[in-house]
Amino acid sequence: MSNETKILLPESEMPTQWYNILADMPFSVPPYLHPVTFEMMGPEDLAPVFPMELIKQEVSTERYIPIPEEVLDIYRLWRPSPLYRARRWEKALNTPAKIYYKWEGVSPPGSHKPNTAIAQAYYNKMEGQTRLATETGAGQWGSSLAFACGIFDLECKVYMVRISYDQKPYRRIMMETWGASVVPSPSMDTQAGRNALAKDPNSPGSLGMAISEALEDAVTHEGTKYSLGSVVNHVLLHQTVIGQEAMKQLKIAGDYPDILIGCVGGGSNFAGLFLPFVKDKLDGKAPDLRILCVESTACPSLTKGLYKYDWADVAKTGPVSKMHTVGHNFIPAPIHAGGLRYHGMSPIICALYDHDLVEASAYHQNEVFEAVVGFARSEGFIFAPETAHAVKAVMDEAIKCREAGEEKTIVFNASGHGHFDLAAYDAYLNGTLVDYDYPEEKIKAALKELPQVDG
Amino acid sequence: MSNETKILLPESEMPTQWYNILADMPFSVPPYLHPVTFEMMGPEDLAPVFPMELIKQEVSTERYIPIPEEVLDIYRLWRPSPLYRARRWEKALNTPAKIYYKWEGVSPPGSHKPNTAIAQAYYNKMEGQTRLATETGAGQWGSSLAFACGIFDLECKVYMVRISYDQKPYRRIMMETWGASVVPSPSMDTQAGRNALAKDPNSPGSLGMAISEALEDAVTHEGTKYSLGSVVNHVLLHQTVIGQEAMKQLKIAGDYPDILIGCVGGGSNFAGLFLPFVKDKLDGKAPDLRILCVESTACPSLTKGLYKYDWADVAKTGPVSKMHTVGHNFIPAPIHAGGLRYHGMSPIICALYDHDLVEASAYHQNEVFEAVVGFARSEGFIFAPETAHAVKAVMDEAIKCREAGEEKTIVFNASGHGHFDLAAYDAYLNGTLVDYDYPEEKIKAALKELPQVDG
Repeated sequence: MSNETKILLPESEMPTQWYNILADMPFSVPPYLHPVTFEMMGPEDLAPVFPMELIKQEVSTERYIPIPEEVLDIYRLWRPSPLYRARRWEKALNTPAKIYYKWEGVSPPGSHKPNTAIAQAYYNKMEGQTRLATETGAGQWGSSLAFACGIFDLECKVYMVRISYDQKPYRRIMMETWGASVVPSPSMDTQAGRNALAKDPNSPGSLGMAISEALEDAVTHEGTKYSLGSVVNHVLLHQTVIGQEAMKQLKIAGDYPDILIGCVGGGSNFAGLFLPFVKDKLDGKAPDLRILCVESTACPSLTKGLYKYDWADVAKTGPVSKMHTVGHNFIPAPIHAGGLRYHGMSPIICALYDHDLVEASAYHQNEVFEAVVGFARSEGFIFAPETAHAVKAVMDEAIKCREAGEEKTIVFNASGHGHFDLAAYDAYLNGTLVDYDYPEEKIKAALKELPQVDG
Repeated sequence: MSNETKILLPESEMPTQWYNILADMPFSVPPYLHPVTFEMMGPEDLAPVFPMELIKQEVSTERYIPIPEEVLDIYRLWRPSPLYRARRWEKALNTPAKIYYKWEGVSPPGSHKPNTAIAQAYYNKMEGQTRLATETGAGQWGSSLAFACGIFDLECKVYMVRISYDQKPYRRIMMETWGASVVPSPSMDTQAGRNALAKDPNSPGSLGMAISEALEDAVTHEGTKYSLGSVVNHVLLHQTVIGQEAMKQLKIAGDYPDILIGCVGGGSNFAGLFLPFVKDKLDGKAPDLRILCVESTACPSLTKGLYKYDWADVAKTGPVSKMHTVGHNFIPAPIHAGGLRYHGMSPIICALYDHDLVEASAYHQNEVFEAVVGFARSEGFIFAPETAHAVKAVMDEAIKCREAGEEKTIVFNASGHGHFDLAAYDAYLNGTLVDYDYPEEKIKAALKELPQVDG
């Protein structure tokens, strides 16, 4: 291991089970409530939008859930992903810390998202569905589901927030290359979209609107279900291949993390890395391990939001869940890290945060891009703006190590590449990138509109 | 090996020497001539633009040249690159052929180009240079040299053909992220550029013009040399890491190629794959191995050009070399595969072609994109338009295997990803992609302007 840069696992070492944290958590995750009645939701309430196997996984307390061979077969196109030791960046930071990153940008769509998209497409195919509908903002999720549907020969309809549809044509073309049908949202293809366009024909759209369109599409089309790329339990479950691989790779390197770091929007990429390590913490094997969630100051649900029941979307059609939220009506500033603009957070992460098993911090855009450009000049890879938030937090911890003379092991999740986000780098490099402070007043206002159901 | 998708090599198996075909060719490659006097060029003629170590490598007949440890250390950021078995595409094509591809898109700039950019930056740094100048068309080469200069802390000046500079801002931003200075060519920074702008302030530029600017920059700036991304011997030499790795990986898979396929513009990506196998042919170990160079019908130097001495660039400032050429004044149609628009071809490849050791074929854009979209829907990865030409040729050979019932082993070089070329996919998908036939008359006219020095 003297000078190796990446630790690779052969395909034979790829995890064959997903790890389910619900089996080991010593406290429960509050249940989903119906968006209108606020009654506890049962499987039958979710059946119109999700296939039964995913509904089962959502509430399962089995510790390990086998990954179907057909899903493993697709994972092999890019998994196991490499674990890198960032030796050149360590040197540039002059830190005694050892920095590792798990590189998920090697997948065809360029992020961790296909880890769940492939599983979701597979289960829908097995249950006889012929078509999936979803929403996408910047396009990472939409392109992953388009890729997955292309592989399993399912039709794919993506409602893409109009402002992204217009500004990011390359993500749209990527989805179309894999065979998906993409429309700008609001669209004329749903009642929700037609209503919005009647009010404002030039509406730039929003993720909340696109979710409403995709949900309506799923329940009004034969053979169609809805697919979701973050937040919910079964998505986090599928992402645990990341952390299981990282554990094996760190063992090969002879290391164990002192600090795990990742960016959080809905929370799935980082949970994918850290959940298997939470098991070690709960088992008493890693009492000092720190787990640090990094969010944007523009949308600080963990660091500034409340731990309350809230709706999943603006239109209040999705389930109500207990989570750290800045309010479903809060509209975050237009930061380049589109994946960090969700008002809520994965209920699993929120429960862990509430029990002090994970920490959180928030950063502004300019400091984040300063860090990630330094990383790119040392290590080469150009990360997505979301991943860049993790890079900034790693840098800060590495500098603390330098100051304290501590040789800590820091591991972060590099969730995706930034090839379609270079406009953000351009803005940083030419000095026009805007920082957004915590919008305390706006969040306070949005938090007044939570449902009155708190447990 | 029953169901493995990729064959990985550990870093310890990375080649530590470049393979030099000049040691084994049973015929000589005609020497470079001075662009004005047509005298044979000596090292002193090349010294103003290249560092001495690269000049030595250009004419060396040593069979193996050690790769410096500092270069290996950077290669480890992405090398050894994976060799994939395209099982899903084989199934889609219903072919008994076994199809493998070497995936060079995993490098930070997304192609094979850094294999030589890193070496060139290193030797320049060692010889005390502080700055490199180069030209780039679509940006693959410029971004690779920018990445390499960022790593070795060299200044980097890139003259980017203006039409690409305007149409492909993401490649420019990538270069700037790694610290390079990029100007549209023709620029006000050189006499050649100023002359061109005086004639036409709105000139869209050309690769020939950009080469002239970069060469002038190198000879007029202290501590600056010029850097070239294809065609010449030392570039092909550096690319042989590709083929050496592929040989080891195929051995692990228990296979040996019947056909090697790659796209050729200047020729370096495919030569990097096939040159180590040419040694096997020359040694009598692979008498039936076919090596197929794939070019564009828009710029068919091997299939339609003459094997004559010609200038390297429009401005006639670079060396004159004997190569298959469609004429230095021939301006190819604006195909999306910008890397396949060079009027000449690597002299080494031309000599091998002249001695029937390699074959060539040419394809139109639409058939090429039809093939590569099919590939993307089976295997996920979205290739560059250049690589897409290789994919089409592989598909044709695989279909021949189906028709003949032959289980041949086909290996191709996947030279780069198409993340910055999705406009080409968009044009294909919406039916606006234009095919260009062999421009026989234009080539005939351009070939009348060759220098009168043929040997």
